[in-house]
Amino acid sequence: MTSRRHFLQKITLSTAVLPFLRFNENTKSKFSDHEPYDDKILRVAIMGLGSYGNRVAEAMQACKRAKVTGVISGTPSKIKDWQSKYNIPDKNCYNYENFDAIKNNPDIDAVYVITPNALHHDQVIRVAKAGKQVICEKPMAINAKEGQEMVDACKKANVKLLVGYRMHFEPKTLEVIRIRKDGEFGKIMFFQGQTGFTIGDPTQWRLNKKLSGGGSMMDIGIYSLNGARYMVGEEPAWVTAHETKTNPEKFKEGVDETIQFEIGFPSGAAASCLSTYNMNNLDRFFMTGQKGFAELWPATNYGPIKGRTNKGELTQPHMTHQTVQMDEMAAIILDGKQPILPVDGEEGVRDLKIIDAIYEAIKKGKRVELK
Amino acid sequence: MTSRRHFLQKITLSTAVLPFLRFNENTKSKFSDHEPYDDKILRVAIMGLGSYGNRVAEAMQACKRAKVTGVISGTPSKIKDWQSKYNIPDKNCYNYENFDAIKNNPDIDAVYVITPNALHHDQVIRVAKAGKQVICEKPMAINAKEGQEMVDACKKANVKLLVGYRMHFEPKTLEVIRIRKDGEFGKIMFFQGQTGFTIGDPTQWRLNKKLSGGGSMMDIGIYSLNGARYMVGEEPAWVTAHETKTNPEKFKEGVDETIQFEIGFPSGAAASCLSTYNMNNLDRFFMTGQKGFAELWPATNYGPIKGRTNKGELTQPHMTHQTVQMDEMAAIILDGKQPILPVDGEEGVRDLKIIDAIYEAIKKGKRVELK
Repeated sequence: MTSRRHFLQKITLSTAVLPFLRFNENTKSKFSDHEPYDDKILRVAIMGLGSYGNRVAEAMQACKRAKVTGVISGTPSKIKDWQSKYNIPDKNCYNYENFDAIKNNPDIDAVYVITPNALHHDQVIRVAKAGKQVICEKPMAINAKEGQEMVDACKKANVKLLVGYRMHFEPKTLEVIRIRKDGEFGKIMFFQGQTGFTIGDPTQWRLNKKLSGGGSMMDIGIYSLNGARYMVGEEPAWVTAHETKTNPEKFKEGVDETIQFEIGFPSGAAASCLSTYNMNNLDRFFMTGQKGFAELWPATNYGPIKGRTNKGELTQPHMTHQTVQMDEMAAIILDGKQPILPVDGEEGVRDLKIIDAIYEAIKKGKRVELK
Repeated sequence: MTSRRHFLQKITLSTAVLPFLRFNENTKSKFSDHEPYDDKILRVAIMGLGSYGNRVAEAMQACKRAKVTGVISGTPSKIKDWQSKYNIPDKNCYNYENFDAIKNNPDIDAVYVITPNALHHDQVIRVAKAGKQVICEKPMAINAKEGQEMVDACKKANVKLLVGYRMHFEPKTLEVIRIRKDGEFGKIMFFQGQTGFTIGDPTQWRLNKKLSGGGSMMDIGIYSLNGARYMVGEEPAWVTAHETKTNPEKFKEGVDETIQFEIGFPSGAAASCLSTYNMNNLDRFFMTGQKGFAELWPATNYGPIKGRTNKGELTQPHMTHQTVQMDEMAAIILDGKQPILPVDGEEGVRDLKIIDAIYEAIKKGKRVELK
């Protein structure tokens, strides 16, 4: 990742990001009416005003470094609600036809894309072309090829691309990673991730392959997969996977209901993961090494996360994940801060390559090697 | 399973079991110097005086219905120790050459075979031919074919064959099964079993394929497999499996170190299991249904087992597993009692068929269907 200085050097070369730079020079924008915090606030437009978009915006009210200053939505009534709730002027409101014009809006530094998975690719590339920083909800795309195109487009446009991996900033998660890095667990042998829930409304976009790009694996299994990588601290060497479908009516062709997948790591560590849209009471990470173990349960829900190691309970305080995420992402974008766990587009592509391999392993009924 | 009356009718036809019958008629045997408990005590010879044999014998000191009255061992010094500890007369001591003569010993009703896995087949058949009831430690054999031959031999000899599934009598385990049967968990969706430990001494028989018949799967993975069956309450429809070996020096050809296996059940429920000789901190069962869940952790060690469900902690008292097992097995053999979970030879064969399929799935790198 580039240092802040390098980043700033780069963006001064790009007229497309001038509004963002101008904001850094002009501290008295109409959106900096709260404490200036070193004058650097990430002004964010939310694209997609669904339930998770709402959750992010509400959490951002407690942010010190990030603020909702715009919206992009296809639903005028939602835009109205948001305008009054977050004091957003008409000129910062866009729909899916006209949002390329955000390019010329000096009140918006970044766009957080919180739309159905299959739409991310085109939307992120359009935002990049408009010269705005991009935050994209996970999964960043529906396959690795699309993800890589998004990374390339953002590079070309000299904007950052971050992926909404909120767990990468979660204190108990980071404590487990610190312990692992310090060698206190010894050689890591095994990780288990079980993520899933019983999904409701069968008409929602998550169960529509055209919008979701898949099923539980894309939406919730990715937490186990991503967790396997950051908990073990290695990149997978191979995957095996098996799908179970008990309700083909609800989970149509291409929409996975339950997938069990196993991951092998170069060190010999193994991971066993479960991804499902058809059961509750999961959301558990477990890792054991030759000297100790860690359990997070719940591991990835909105918290509080609970956890313990062989030494006892983890006591790091709960903080609203999206608040921490957006403050940290502001620091990454504005200051070039290096997060402990990466949240950039390349990280997103790594997950998608493995998801591609998991789907391939299911299709072939065989282990798939990763390069 | 036969009722006691049917059982007694059958054994009266067999001169081979006359000593056993005689004991029931003659309450004042030299081994019935403790309370007579309805005159029926199962008098057991332990075959194989290793660490688990010792554990069983010690636990049996608290039994009300079973008693150690004989030993079979290839090590004279061990026999001496046991004789003094358990007050065993010379005439009840055998070695592996002469134990067929146990046939004519009226002080011994049953033999508990606690020897290396690969020896069970021949030894159990010899015990059956000697007309004694047989209890065989798990795995009952090293493959299903051998297991079935043992079942057939015991049937032919009109003796019972029980397998040392001590968890089948464990109170918290049985409580979870009661709850499941009562429908309180709703439809069962998923079971997870993780059993294993870091095995020590590389020269022990468990790591010698000729004696063990395999590796962790035979010895400790069988708990997860067997647990999957009794917790879900169905017989598997298919398995997938994958082996990981990090130390081929210690875990030689045919001796598995770590196996991940998945089981599909006809109802659509899935199980994910881990069997290992190379990590600790495991020993967890987890099951979730549409209305509730259960966790046992530790699930299969010598206890106390700990567990909870969606309704809270399980509080059934701990009892030494082998004490309960041997009292219950005495009731099965002497009274024809029906256990809640089967512990007969057929149950052992069911596990071996699935272990065969797991090894086949690893070899083929593909899912294996079970009939």
